[in-house]
Amino acid sequence: MAILYSYFRSSCAWRVRIALEFKEIEYEYKAVHLVKGGGQQNSDDYKIINPMAQVPSLIMGDKVFTQSIAILEYLEESYPLKPLLPKDVVKRFKVREICEIIASGIQPLQNLSVLKQFEESKQKDWAAKWIFKGLTALEKILETSSGNYCVGDDVTLADCCLIPQLYNARRFDVDVEQFPNIVRVEKNLEVLDPFVKAHPNRQPDFPLELAA
Amino acid sequence: MAILYSYFRSSCAWRVRIALEFKEIEYEYKAVHLVKGGGQQNSDDYKIINPMAQVPSLIMGDKVFTQSIAILEYLEESYPLKPLLPKDVVKRFKVREICEIIASGIQPLQNLSVLKQFEESKQKDWAAKWIFKGLTALEKILETSSGNYCVGDDVTLADCCLIPQLYNARRFDVDVEQFPNIVRVEKNLEVLDPFVKAHPNRQPDFPLELAA
Repeated sequence: MAILYSYFRSSCAWRVRIALEFKEIEYEYKAVHLVKGGGQQNSDDYKIINPMAQVPSLIMGDKVFTQSIAILEYLEESYPLKPLLPKDVVKRFKVREICEIIASGIQPLQNLSVLKQFEESKQKDWAAKWIFKGLTALEKILETSSGNYCVGDDVTLADCCLIPQLYNARRFDVDVEQFPNIVRVEKNLEVLDPFVKAHPNRQPDFPLELAA
Repeated sequence: MAILYSYFRSSCAWRVRIALEFKEIEYEYKAVHLVKGGGQQNSDDYKIINPMAQVPSLIMGDKVFTQSIAILEYLEESYPLKPLLPKDVVKRFKVREICEIIASGIQPLQNLSVLKQFEESKQKDWAAKWIFKGLTALEKILETSSGNYCVGDDVTLADCCLIPQLYNARRFDVDVEQFPNIVRVEKNLEVLDPFVKAHPNRQPDFPLELAA
């Protein structure tokens, strides 16, 4: 069975959890606490698995997979039965464009290791600035690309990336209601079974104190 | 004919230039000066093409393509004759893992719009820190993945990402000689025709004062 090294709140691990649930791939969840004791991801043992010291890492058979978008593409190619990419080559591009705006344009600038470089009082403004910029561009793209979901009416890799990023947007007090297409797509996605199951509050390492 | 909006030194535009040259796709070069007058990429006209206000943007027919990795994947799917992805699904993953370490793990943290947030005296240290972290992880991966190039003995999308990132590494005084596999692969790549042609100093907007 596959093993996923994850942290309940990591948006990159969350992307992969959605895809695993969508494709009905069973996996064992191994929690990597990104904060406790300076972060378990920084241990020498974990860095053998993941040299960037990040989650997620996915183990399948004797193979180790890191970097969430590369993992999503691998899952798509290896488990094509429930596709997360359209057949049309321009639509496939559009899905990947949205993924990259989130995975390169937003998330790296607001992830934990970057925020730790700033005083706590400045972290939220820094994160919110980049999230706002990225979501503004995404809203513009979704105006024409979206149907029920980010690209047309089928769930794609773009949706796997969008939902975790919106959770982060709210954590950093970005008003997502100003992006009507994004919010509409979110409402359609969040009720779907794979998205319900992959949510942070359903993960084994979700802290009880947050459940209150 | 295709149109590429580019800046000679942009590592993301450079990735796409290498792929266009490799696949022998002719294109017209349109320079977008990222610095002059606050950056031409921030004009309202350009943001209609590229809502993230970045280069590259690629126009083919009536379609607009933005985000470099998404563009590379599109070119690969649309012009498969000279492939930049291996056939084997695990090797394809490895190529994309390397691309993502560069495109999400390094480049976004040292790009111009981020560096502008810091005082000039702190910019180099900030950029060098993330480049060093990323190249350290890449060296570890290339220990096993590389042959003559990043993944085996064929040029791939990973190589299109590596070369521009090494140029940035040197700009920010990261000692790349400490990464023997990276430097060995670089030496093999930089003599290849598509890499020669795509180099910043061969672009129409390369400033004459830098040529001295």
